[in-house]
Amino acid sequence: MNALSKLINKNKENKIICVGLDTDIDKIPSHLLNTTNPVLEFNRAIIDATKDSVAAYKINFAFYECNGAEGFNNLKSTIDLIPKDILIIADAKRGDIGNTSDMYAKSVFNYFNCDSVTVNPYLGEDSVKPFLNYQNKLIFVLALTSNPGSADFEKLKLENGKFLFQSVIEAVNKWNTNSNCGLVFGATQFDELNKNINSFKNLPVLLPGVGAQGGSLEDVVITFKAHNRSNFLINVSRSVIYKSHGIDFAFAAKEEVEKMNNIIYKILNQ
Amino acid sequence: MNALSKLINKNKENKIICVGLDTDIDKIPSHLLNTTNPVLEFNRAIIDATKDSVAAYKINFAFYECNGAEGFNNLKSTIDLIPKDILIIADAKRGDIGNTSDMYAKSVFNYFNCDSVTVNPYLGEDSVKPFLNYQNKLIFVLALTSNPGSADFEKLKLENGKFLFQSVIEAVNKWNTNSNCGLVFGATQFDELNKNINSFKNLPVLLPGVGAQGGSLEDVVITFKAHNRSNFLINVSRSVIYKSHGIDFAFAAKEEVEKMNNIIYKILNQ
Repeated sequence: MNALSKLINKNKENKIICVGLDTDIDKIPSHLLNTTNPVLEFNRAIIDATKDSVAAYKINFAFYECNGAEGFNNLKSTIDLIPKDILIIADAKRGDIGNTSDMYAKSVFNYFNCDSVTVNPYLGEDSVKPFLNYQNKLIFVLALTSNPGSADFEKLKLENGKFLFQSVIEAVNKWNTNSNCGLVFGATQFDELNKNINSFKNLPVLLPGVGAQGGSLEDVVITFKAHNRSNFLINVSRSVIYKSHGIDFAFAAKEEVEKMNNIIYKILNQ
Repeated sequence: MNALSKLINKNKENKIICVGLDTDIDKIPSHLLNTTNPVLEFNRAIIDATKDSVAAYKINFAFYECNGAEGFNNLKSTIDLIPKDILIIADAKRGDIGNTSDMYAKSVFNYFNCDSVTVNPYLGEDSVKPFLNYQNKLIFVLALTSNPGSADFEKLKLENGKFLFQSVIEAVNKWNTNSNCGLVFGATQFDELNKNINSFKNLPVLLPGVGAQGGSLEDVVITFKAHNRSNFLINVSRSVIYKSHGIDFAFAAKEEVEKMNNIIYKILNQ
């Protein structure tokens, strides 16, 4: 099944939550620290508990890379635990000149076998192209991110009156000839979301920033419904996976996702 | 020794060549393929042959990541082979929201023990800050890259009449309170280099694009000399490490670097 179909199928079931596996050994419940592989056991429990409730998992490469080869082994083993009908997003924010982006694309799509990746547009089309050549994958390009620093460059006003991130959105629409592009748009950027949602056209959207970063789940879902838009994912990481630090952490994560699913269901079906 | 001192010391010896270890198993000499670890043997030979001639090594993470944990082990083993007085640049072009950039910084500086890293500025100050907190390291921020796609966003004209990459250079100058920032500026962007070199102020500069990408070594060195600037590195990757595909590959790489060193020496001392 191609990546976009996985997203569409889950959205049809009113599932739009993407759980971010930002697994940090310093934050996982202490009872797991006695196991052979605490990070993998944590991820296994979170995935087992939430797999029927989520639309996607987003794996933040930074949290694995910082442990070198052991971290990369955990990353691969975690990916292997995820059911094949659920979209796996490599949150890697890669981007480099062509021959290097080729290697990054090989890494996330061939070695790690992810369905999808986040990429940084700063270096322009030829830096994104090697990812776009994977027609069955889904490439989420950073447009407007959820962090305060998004004001520094992404929101700079261009000579033509547009913001830089709007120019990125236009470009991504042009790059979408294989129907395998998407956008990253911060859920914390609610005003900008309302003003720009029509410019997304057919692009799927990954929205980080709900939960620990302060974005509102309800506001985002209401906006997408009001614009008759599907094909979107709301990412939650810390507020779900670290909801409880006790032995009930996986159950607490599941409860948190289901609480959000109930809110989503009510909005989408009212 | 801190990262900037390593660069300054080598520059004082007229060494400004940075060799990029973009090691690709499909491109290394066939006689190495029978060894236990061809990538590591290739890197070992290149480093042994060139270590007295270079100012720095740049390790392109993509070429190692695409082989997963094994690649990461090779990356770490390669770093361990480099003499401690030579600057090691993690060419990773990372950048993410704060808590994630924290993890990327831990990866390149604590786990891999690199002196320096390349980062992407698109997400703004708080995405770069976790790297800047490592005061003894050197953080090269992408300003204007060497590839054709640099025209897509980096060269967009802003409302204030400046180009986006010029706004990045201004910001990096402001972020440089720990004297640990630098710029990446493509050697292929010769006109822009001449027009903007004064805006670099005290920032060290890493210039990729000489060799396979077509930038001119002579032009870059003459420009830096004319502006009385030191603290710069010219990166060469493919044109050095793949100069020969025979058993003489390491000697050929050394010869290629020394040929460039002679050109540099003549320009700097004429």
